[in-house]
Amino acid sequence: MARTQGSHSGITGPRVREVALKLFAQHGYAAVSMRQIAREVGVQVGAIYNYTPDKQALLFSLLEGHMEELLAAWEAEPRPEAPQDRLEVFVRFHIRFNLARPQAIFISYMELRNLEPAHFAVIETLRKRYEAALEEILRDGQATGAFSVPDTRLASYALIAMLTGVNTWYREGGRLSIAEVADIYWDMVRKAVAAG
Amino acid sequence: MARTQGSHSGITGPRVREVALKLFAQHGYAAVSMRQIAREVGVQVGAIYNYTPDKQALLFSLLEGHMEELLAAWEAEPRPEAPQDRLEVFVRFHIRFNLARPQAIFISYMELRNLEPAHFAVIETLRKRYEAALEEILRDGQATGAFSVPDTRLASYALIAMLTGVNTWYREGGRLSIAEVADIYWDMVRKAVAAG
Repeated sequence: MARTQGSHSGITGPRVREVALKLFAQHGYAAVSMRQIAREVGVQVGAIYNYTPDKQALLFSLLEGHMEELLAAWEAEPRPEAPQDRLEVFVRFHIRFNLARPQAIFISYMELRNLEPAHFAVIETLRKRYEAALEEILRDGQATGAFSVPDTRLASYALIAMLTGVNTWYREGGRLSIAEVADIYWDMVRKAVAAG
Repeated sequence: MARTQGSHSGITGPRVREVALKLFAQHGYAAVSMRQIAREVGVQVGAIYNYTPDKQALLFSLLEGHMEELLAAWEAEPRPEAPQDRLEVFVRFHIRFNLARPQAIFISYMELRNLEPAHFAVIETLRKRYEAALEEILRDGQATGAFSVPDTRLASYALIAMLTGVNTWYREGGRLSIAEVADIYWDMVRKAVAAG
């Protein structure tokens, strides 16, 4: 029989993930050991394995959890009829969601190469589902004549890269609020895909 | 006196950088040892130190060399009078330059956090110089009335993020040539910053 989980597993499980996320973001997956994670959580290294089979499973679980949360949050957003309105919802959602999770976004980009192939494939599928949600908006707007986009696939990549870039420079307490940043990006996105 | 460089230093120096770039891109800076670099170059580990004081100096030299090359190449580009034309030159240049150097671009984003603070500051300064080149074009276009950009600083970040994103999905031999990709991105960029 495997080790039974301690009575604190309900608390320690999330704490292990939280610490792992922080350490992976700070030092990189390759540089962080399970021993280091255990020390920071405040448990014996053996106890960590009650919560995760290994470091790879931990990384995968963090990235998968992040993507599932992203997709669920997007599904829960309002879905106005007009493609232009839906695109605005997407732009503001993406910026807000990502700025609230800087470490998860950071490791989602930085640590993809450290996923084993089967894990990578799962994350890729989830990522493509999110990109497809944006592409659908662009195709709908193309169909109604609201948008003129030479290539909806590339436009979805281009817009997501642009919006995700906010995380690399935005600092809380800087000269712009998140809402102001979203206004500025929405202005550029709206025009980038506009017809005429 | 320091070790004298061997007669092959003119060849081995660039080879050390080339191998380091490849290994850092493949495995990450933290996971690569000087021993591994030496083995792949085909020299004794001690001989590596004829070419670089340590692994940190090697990473810094790669990132600094990349940024210097980027800035010099941009300076050598044509500089048409009209801001819109100059912006088009920038878009096509950025995509072409980056797609020709996938590993350098990759480590420039991935390994920034592994630079010591003094090294990081140098790279940041060079990066800001490149962003400023784009922002200058945007400000010029704003002044002539060709562009309408609510925030030229943010627009420069947004456009560079969008254009750099091409490196994450472009595959040689895919459905689009580099020139076709540049056409599609230029269409979006042109509209994103357009007046009216």
